[in-house]
Amino acid sequence: MARADLSPEELAVYRPTVAEPEDFDAFWADTLAEARTHDLDVRATPTAAPFEAVSIQDVSFAGFGGDRVNAWLTTPVAATGDLPVVVEFLGYGGGRELPGVHLHWANAGFAHLLMDTRGQGSAWGTGGHTGDPHDYGAHHPGFMTAGIADPATYYYRRVFTDAVRAVETARSLPGLDATRVSVTGGSQGGGITLATAGLVPDLFAAMPDVPFLCHFRRAVDIADTNPYSEITRYLAIHRGAEQQAFRTLSYFDGVNFAKRAKATTLFSVALMDKICPPSTVYAAYNAYQGDRSIEVYGFNDHEGGGFGQKLRQITWLKSLLA
Amino acid sequence: MARADLSPEELAVYRPTVAEPEDFDAFWADTLAEARTHDLDVRATPTAAPFEAVSIQDVSFAGFGGDRVNAWLTTPVAATGDLPVVVEFLGYGGGRELPGVHLHWANAGFAHLLMDTRGQGSAWGTGGHTGDPHDYGAHHPGFMTAGIADPATYYYRRVFTDAVRAVETARSLPGLDATRVSVTGGSQGGGITLATAGLVPDLFAAMPDVPFLCHFRRAVDIADTNPYSEITRYLAIHRGAEQQAFRTLSYFDGVNFAKRAKATTLFSVALMDKICPPSTVYAAYNAYQGDRSIEVYGFNDHEGGGFGQKLRQITWLKSLLA
Amino acid sequence: MARADLSPEELAVYRPTVAEPEDFDAFWADTLAEARTHDLDVRATPTAAPFEAVSIQDVSFAGFGGDRVNAWLTTPVAATGDLPVVVEFLGYGGGRELPGVHLHWANAGFAHLLMDTRGQGSAWGTGGHTGDPHDYGAHHPGFMTAGIADPATYYYRRVFTDAVRAVETARSLPGLDATRVSVTGGSQGGGITLATAGLVPDLFAAMPDVPFLCHFRRAVDIADTNPYSEITRYLAIHRGAEQQAFRTLSYFDGVNFAKRAKATTLFSVALMDKICPPSTVYAAYNAYQGDRSIEVYGFNDHEGGGFGQKLRQITWLKSLLA
Amino acid sequence: MARADLSPEELAVYRPTVAEPEDFDAFWADTLAEARTHDLDVRATPTAAPFEAVSIQDVSFAGFGGDRVNAWLTTPVAATGDLPVVVEFLGYGGGRELPGVHLHWANAGFAHLLMDTRGQGSAWGTGGHTGDPHDYGAHHPGFMTAGIADPATYYYRRVFTDAVRAVETARSLPGLDATRVSVTGGSQGGGITLATAGLVPDLFAAMPDVPFLCHFRRAVDIADTNPYSEITRYLAIHRGAEQQAFRTLSYFDGVNFAKRAKATTLFSVALMDKICPPSTVYAAYNAYQGDRSIEVYGFNDHEGGGFGQKLRQITWLKSLLA
Amino acid sequence: MARADLSPEELAVYRPTVAEPEDFDAFWADTLAEARTHDLDVRATPTAAPFEAVSIQDVSFAGFGGDRVNAWLTTPVAATGDLPVVVEFLGYGGGRELPGVHLHWANAGFAHLLMDTRGQGSAWGTGGHTGDPHDYGAHHPGFMTAGIADPATYYYRRVFTDAVRAVETARSLPGLDATRVSVTGGSQGGGITLATAGLVPDLFAAMPDVPFLCHFRRAVDIADTNPYSEITRYLAIHRGAEQQAFRTLSYFDGVNFAKRAKATTLFSVALMDKICPPSTVYAAYNAYQGDRSIEVYGFNDHEGGGFGQKLRQITWLKSLLA
Amino acid sequence: MARADLSPEELAVYRPTVAEPEDFDAFWADTLAEARTHDLDVRATPTAAPFEAVSIQDVSFAGFGGDRVNAWLTTPVAATGDLPVVVEFLGYGGGRELPGVHLHWANAGFAHLLMDTRGQGSAWGTGGHTGDPHDYGAHHPGFMTAGIADPATYYYRRVFTDAVRAVETARSLPGLDATRVSVTGGSQGGGITLATAGLVPDLFAAMPDVPFLCHFRRAVDIADTNPYSEITRYLAIHRGAEQQAFRTLSYFDGVNFAKRAKATTLFSVALMDKICPPSTVYAAYNAYQGDRSIEVYGFNDHEGGGFGQKLRQITWLKSLLA
Repeated sequence: MARADLSPEELAVYRPTVAEPEDFDAFWADTLAEARTHDLDVRATPTAAPFEAVSIQDVSFAGFGGDRVNAWLTTPVAATGDLPVVVEFLGYGGGRELPGVHLHWANAGFAHLLMDTRGQGSAWGTGGHTGDPHDYGAHHPGFMTAGIADPATYYYRRVFTDAVRAVETARSLPGLDATRVSVTGGSQGGGITLATAGLVPDLFAAMPDVPFLCHFRRAVDIADTNPYSEITRYLAIHRGAEQQAFRTLSYFDGVNFAKRAKATTLFSVALMDKICPPSTVYAAYNAYQGDRSIEVYGFNDHEGGGFGQKLRQITWLKSLLA
Repeated sequence: MARADLSPEELAVYRPTVAEPEDFDAFWADTLAEARTHDLDVRATPTAAPFEAVSIQDVSFAGFGGDRVNAWLTTPVAATGDLPVVVEFLGYGGGRELPGVHLHWANAGFAHLLMDTRGQGSAWGTGGHTGDPHDYGAHHPGFMTAGIADPATYYYRRVFTDAVRAVETARSLPGLDATRVSVTGGSQGGGITLATAGLVPDLFAAMPDVPFLCHFRRAVDIADTNPYSEITRYLAIHRGAEQQAFRTLSYFDGVNFAKRAKATTLFSVALMDKICPPSTVYAAYNAYQGDRSIEVYGFNDHEGGGFGQKLRQITWLKSLLA
Repeated sequence: MARADLSPEELAVYRPTVAEPEDFDAFWADTLAEARTHDLDVRATPTAAPFEAVSIQDVSFAGFGGDRVNAWLTTPVAATGDLPVVVEFLGYGGGRELPGVHLHWANAGFAHLLMDTRGQGSAWGTGGHTGDPHDYGAHHPGFMTAGIADPATYYYRRVFTDAVRAVETARSLPGLDATRVSVTGGSQGGGITLATAGLVPDLFAAMPDVPFLCHFRRAVDIADTNPYSEITRYLAIHRGAEQQAFRTLSYFDGVNFAKRAKATTLFSVALMDKICPPSTVYAAYNAYQGDRSIEVYGFNDHEGGGFGQKLRQITWLKSLLA
Repeated sequence: MARADLSPEELAVYRPTVAEPEDFDAFWADTLAEARTHDLDVRATPTAAPFEAVSIQDVSFAGFGGDRVNAWLTTPVAATGDLPVVVEFLGYGGGRELPGVHLHWANAGFAHLLMDTRGQGSAWGTGGHTGDPHDYGAHHPGFMTAGIADPATYYYRRVFTDAVRAVETARSLPGLDATRVSVTGGSQGGGITLATAGLVPDLFAAMPDVPFLCHFRRAVDIADTNPYSEITRYLAIHRGAEQQAFRTLSYFDGVNFAKRAKATTLFSVALMDKICPPSTVYAAYNAYQGDRSIEVYGFNDHEGGGFGQKLRQITWLKSLLA
Repeated sequence: MARADLSPEELAVYRPTVAEPEDFDAFWADTLAEARTHDLDVRATPTAAPFEAVSIQDVSFAGFGGDRVNAWLTTPVAATGDLPVVVEFLGYGGGRELPGVHLHWANAGFAHLLMDTRGQGSAWGTGGHTGDPHDYGAHHPGFMTAGIADPATYYYRRVFTDAVRAVETARSLPGLDATRVSVTGGSQGGGITLATAGLVPDLFAAMPDVPFLCHFRRAVDIADTNPYSEITRYLAIHRGAEQQAFRTLSYFDGVNFAKRAKATTLFSVALMDKICPPSTVYAAYNAYQGDRSIEVYGFNDHEGGGFGQKLRQITWLKSLLA
Repeated sequence: MARADLSPEELAVYRPTVAEPEDFDAFWADTLAEARTHDLDVRATPTAAPFEAVSIQDVSFAGFGGDRVNAWLTTPVAATGDLPVVVEFLGYGGGRELPGVHLHWANAGFAHLLMDTRGQGSAWGTGGHTGDPHDYGAHHPGFMTAGIADPATYYYRRVFTDAVRAVETARSLPGLDATRVSVTGGSQGGGITLATAGLVPDLFAAMPDVPFLCHFRRAVDIADTNPYSEITRYLAIHRGAEQQAFRTLSYFDGVNFAKRAKATTLFSVALMDKICPPSTVYAAYNAYQGDRSIEVYGFNDHEGGGFGQKLRQITWLKSLLA
């Protein structure tokens, strides 16, 4: 491992121009309005997970297109009063797994809603359980180029909409405090966190870790590995598709969401991150509109701060709530 | 490269028992019947490809579910009389590419119909252009586990149906000889060739090269690379799904199609093939019902005989037609 | 990934002869007696971990040679009565990490004592904090050949002794049920689990996952990766040391501990495990003396059952305790 | 894949100083004069290739030193009048293969002469058939350092001379239009194309794709893979040979040929090309004397435009000829 | 590293049938007779190497075809009486290097003649200096397939002849004892050692280490790396050349030389050797006619016994000479 | 291989600021004083190595903490008068090996003392034989982070002290010229050479080859491979340890020793060195206080000049001594 991006000094002031389509806000307003034509239809059933300190419910709701999206809701058994909530999004390729894999937020006194990423959940961990009944087109294996020919059909249009709906789900559940909903996630989950922070105006806090899906144009030029390189390989085959593909991606760039996000935020970034190069993270961080702070991990690749950052988040969010 | 499977002597007599569901024939009869409820709706328009010896048409037809499937039809300009036809299916990840990439069959006096593989076409070459508007479920990136939870939703149910419809398309086109339609393809294209040979009773000949999609159970155990290992990784995540997944795959195993295929056949196999291990190829070859012969490439990996096998096929098929 | 060891059928009955020194029991009796000349000197102080459902204490005790060994004790806040205990040992290269990384056992109603592995803790995770003030000799980087010239100086003599002392520590702590102490761990932690089960006569249960440190002679012949291959490379340099090295290892072989272990056990094994090949796991499993069962993961490499196996263990142990 | 060379903006104006020996023109004049002391002795015999739209002849001629060099001549059967000609040179390690592998030019109305590269033809494809009876010296495996101690003995002196003789062969054949001979090739074939364009004054057009053999000094510094790194490794062994080796290479640098080439040209370059880094291609392109244009593939490695560039060439050359 | 060939028990009795052409002896008798039509023309000049304990001469002689072959002769300065001689041959890709790289034999009281391998010497070390003015044909990069179409043109015909001539050179030099000439070498040098032992009837001893060039047929099937896989790749391209290539190789197989070798021998073999698999070494060892012994390195890859085997050879040869 | 560091022109003037603790000199004065409280206790016994031109003794002495450190002393048998001495230190992971592996210095008229590196000697070659009875702490496998939490416990404190004691040992041995002791070594041996040159005021000469252990801060940022990346990975786990770790390393940085070294020096550097990047070498070279010269190998990775540099050193040192 070695550094292969800008220096720490350059990163701190890195504010690139990232393409933004004129109708960005309209596109997302229309998208969310369309989703809201479907009843949210939240369903929650208890699971038989063998834990006594927390209770886990199998939650689902109507996401983009009314498609069913699954999640786990984990809450401390000892809770009194409405709980502050953390909605978490997952890294690329993973699923919500078996119930109980993530107990930290609930053990720290939060309700924790862990959203499945549609179509994903078979690349690591113990699996996902949410389908995605839409046409991916002639795509490169993976999700980065699914429906990339048009913003309307692009995969992440559906995922980001699901995320907004997950926040709405959290707010609708009994025993949860709708005014104190925060969002978090690492890598792809960090990218979804940024999108949600840009699309939902009144979140309590946003905690993106080593976020993916930021400054696609630079990422494609400098990242040598998946998932960004799925886009590279797609463009290497569809040699004339560059302009259209990057136009599509401009509707989904974390930098454009950061420019609209107002919730207090705690980022993390790893300076030896080969998957989500630090300059793409700083491009979003330096554009972020809310109060912002960032944990910098100088010697880590994409694992970033690991469990240390989780502890940091819990402590930070508890202070903010206090 | 080195050999890593059975010896040539063992391969020659390798006839493993491969699981076959009781309703295999019913499943496929129902599937094809359902597809035929959609009008085939063949469309053909000339392309502007800069060739003078051949003419290339952009052909499409209604595949599984009535979904639009694209193909190129290449015919020799100098043709007189109805042409014998070769329908070709593609290797994993590729598309029909730009018009004209494959001229050999047309130069040898055949009509050549090259079918796009739905959803694919962004991993190598110059691309595919056919979508696949169905739910892949929580799948591993790629196509091997798309819809694997049920035979009815499995990806290759649609692809194999498309292939049967492509043969029907060839038979419907003017200037082509419906009684002399042969099928061919390498790797995934070889697997589709076998399926087509098992599903279409009156093909003239079948020429699968280093076919994929044969004897899945053994392939998963011994193949260390994609695409077979997409299944391995899916099962590594969905730890309880083994039985259901292999039940689904049994409806799509090339060995089961080979047991039903009656067209004269020319296989090829490479003894150092790491992607489609030779024992999986021989499992299908030794089960094949029609007149059969096989070219053995002793020192090749998955590239097999390359252009040499193409020349061999042309010569072989011309003899058969003579 | 592919299978590269014996078939499932062969594994089920695999009972190889593994070298056992005549003075195996004496060696360990002397070793433990020597360790017990040091006062156990258990110390426990609360941590400031930001959790409310569990409480975490920083525990240490005198291990081999009286050296200080660190651990985390995590207990459910809501506990009533003496808690059943799970002592957990770690995988190769890892440390006990920051407090709170593993909450599952405590959330399920157990006291959980997580022992640091001396000298390790800088290869993954968030670190270990226990030194090992002994001479490693001219060793290959890593721990597998540290002091290998003599059983008395071999690294794992100290680690296995620490593990026995950790059980004694658990039994000495207030609020914990000394009669219901179980041991567990994955990979190296599984090997330590086996050693502890062979050395401590009255454990409640033992749950080794994909255990390492079993049937060294075969492991060195067939494993192509670290950590077993540290031994291979050591012997490749010290070309005359084979006999002495394997004599040393025979005092530490999980198979020899399994032959002495009487606690009810739940193993796990992964059939595509390249790091701890399944035959080395079955060599121990088939030699195990107590009531035994095993979870077989057919398509996994060394990650084995992952969180799924953790859930399986909790359910299994709760049943056993019920 | 990622970009690892200059930016597109820097490439567009990249005009490095490349060493050129004073006697460059004399060296090549003498070399060609010497070759021409041998009778060209063109021989052409029909092949039995199973095609009807084209006819393929096995052509050979006297190359450097009078050594026999083989080629395939493919012509459309339907031709009327003298055909424009495309002479094609091959990529590194390949051979002319079996007759008929490349049909596109002939199908588009051109005579196509495909020259074998002496000594090569056993690394990919279906083989070459031309020897090279000369001393390679104590060379690194491969051809890049064969005879590198002196320009007179360097391998490419013979290959470039063969290429000039191949053009003369094309001009001598009946039914071909000697005034409309163009040259093309990819990678090594692109380098030979440039050399031929610099050595033959009256070519109709030159179409080098992702050309190799340009700006050796920079290539050795930045290219991490074969074939350029054959030179690096040779110099890593022959530690004092740097000056002499680069003097030799200066007689063969595509940049020096580009400075002399006057035929209209269509280059291609791939911005993620690791084998022939784009700066080495632009060094030649920006020095090229004739009318020039270039296709830029922004997301491709050394495969460049693939079949898309072939179509582009055919269309471009047809326009030029119209 | 792991074992990937037969077990030690199987190796000890491994005596495969290896093809031998009927005219093997005649072929070599003719070859050597032809070489001897050239005067040996030994030349020896002192070097300026900065050593005082040994003296190094730059020796050359007429090898195959009368081609000049270079060597270093290193002798102890303190020698009295005619010295026993060790002629050494080099591993694949290396050269005789700068004078003085190997001092062990001379320091132990031997004259040491180190023969350059024609054409090689640019892949590792400090280089070779001997050319090979012959046609390699359309060969795979490297030397394994140079001239493989015919035994008369195969590269090793020249190398093995050079080796016999090197022994003759040693016997002709003043101060060296012509009756006590031994041969040695590792890897390729071991293969040349075997050939020399089979072709020169009155050698004192032969010491092949981890010899290459033995039982080509099996080697090609099981070796996954260079140099054996140069043959595999050649045959993967020249798909019809299998029979002819293996016929050529049968004239050069170390097993056939071993069947004729009578000098006392000390082999070495490494059981984890991936480059020269142990079964190919035992195929030669078990066929060897003279008194034989072998050092077995159980945990080494192709480096075998390294300097330890060098010490073993010196001690063994001194005992034999005593 | 390719260049991946500063250009030759930048390297020539590269003089970075490298952190130096205020008490650097005091730390080392105290360390050496402490070591000297132990009697040097030099022991030397003849070995049975089978050489006649040189004699080899097994030497040991009291290093850091009085720990026993082993070495080989090789001297020419023909020596008359007190010999100039070369003390050599080893590359990372290696040991002094079996006696006689390095004969060049003795053959050139020098006494050669080859010091074992404590704890090392099991990663390549034929082994080391010196232990290191100290606590490595929770270290990353290898030696780079052993005891890194404090300068007093850091591994190289002991090694550098051993090296100074080795020079004192050489000066104490009969037949050796205490006024003409030089030091050398490659890679880690080069780093130890620099440390010794900085700590021993009256050395005759210092010859570090491609030295390791220089400018740690930059090395960690740009080196992608072991051993520097052991530090990177340690810091990736111990996320808060950066400041303390680099403080420790500042006491051991070759640049700080170079600033104090006065012996005439001959460095070597390789411009494609990925293990010890050239800028880290030049950081030390350009800071070196004594007369200095450097051999630059433009196309080599970490092997540098190999045997060629050895010859260069011998010639250079002989001139200096003349």
